[in-house]
Amino acid sequence: MALKIYLAGPDVFLREAESVGRKKLQMCQEFGFEGLFPLDKDKDVGRDAAGIFRANCDLMRQADIGLFNLTPFRGPSADVGTVFELGFMFAQGKPVNGYANAAPTYLGRVAEVFGPLDESDPSPRDRDGHTVENFGLYDNLMIVRAIADSGGVLTAVEARDGSVGAPLAALDAFRACLAALRERNAGGALETAASSRRKGAS
Amino acid sequence: MALKIYLAGPDVFLREAESVGRKKLQMCQEFGFEGLFPLDKDKDVGRDAAGIFRANCDLMRQADIGLFNLTPFRGPSADVGTVFELGFMFAQGKPVNGYANAAPTYLGRVAEVFGPLDESDPSPRDRDGHTVENFGLYDNLMIVRAIADSGGVLTAVEARDGSVGAPLAALDAFRACLAALRERNAGGALETAASSRRKGAS
Repeated sequence: MALKIYLAGPDVFLREAESVGRKKLQMCQEFGFEGLFPLDKDKDVGRDAAGIFRANCDLMRQADIGLFNLTPFRGPSADVGTVFELGFMFAQGKPVNGYANAAPTYLGRVAEVFGPLDESDPSPRDRDGHTVENFGLYDNLMIVRAIADSGGVLTAVEARDGSVGAPLAALDAFRACLAALRERNAGGALETAASSRRKGAS
Repeated sequence: MALKIYLAGPDVFLREAESVGRKKLQMCQEFGFEGLFPLDKDKDVGRDAAGIFRANCDLMRQADIGLFNLTPFRGPSADVGTVFELGFMFAQGKPVNGYANAAPTYLGRVAEVFGPLDESDPSPRDRDGHTVENFGLYDNLMIVRAIADSGGVLTAVEARDGSVGAPLAALDAFRACLAALRERNAGGALETAASSRRKGAS
């Protein structure tokens, strides 16, 4: 049985959301996985916030692992809806994986939006006087460390110059993440882990 | 035994993080709760991202409920680290509660940062062509609906004009949330629920 991957991300807010979703599902299949894309469910439940929320939670519960589009969205960090789901799936004990269409660190992106920072300072402050995490990580440590501690993969491919406003729909980093996941799953390793998790939960 | 509240938020990035933490712990006590503030643990583990991550997860596992500072942080939405934790505690089946020092809706804040939006459109688009959720909610629906579905409380008190750049450290909305939680806990209702959850988990 193919491993089920929940495909999270601000992709659902794109004009071309449906075609991006179709492409992602097809790419999952090429790599031997079954993708679950939230927009399909959202269409069934219509324009009701409570219904969309529950449909997304149901899909996450069905999935074996998560793959999150962490490309910056309306600011220097990932989309908060996506990050909520990353926390949800991490708490379920499932491997969480991420990809991003922007390569620089969080610190670099904050500097891009809010002005220069002293990168030699272990705790530089932004223009509002708030500390900026300076661990050399891609985003907030809760996101990056959850991926690492869950045994997940994080891939980043800079889709064009500049990181804020990076294209949400590019799929090179997504493909790189699927390739890494297929390699990890050689011989069904991830399938076996997911299957024992399912037994443990039942 | 007092109910344990995990106190999440970008407060840890404030210059006055320690004094804000102390005030929050004291206010929790005034309302009959025990606060758990992540900075105390972070100090023990030092400047190590993996250690901070695990210490925060441990604190969340110890807590009965969560109280999240959802004041906008470096953009129109809440801090992503905070939202990760909200997803984590929601998945654990614990009541998640929020407060914010900014009253307007997410749509209003996106308009403030990225320019005017057609609010009569059920799916208005920002300047990048991305849909902006228009459910009249305070932030992304995953955040707001998780709070509602968990039986939690969300309080917002506009600390000053304008919502983006609202002061992170103001505590009026925090106090209002604690007051609402104390009311819900009249007769130990929340304690009883937390206690049966602990039994279920063991």
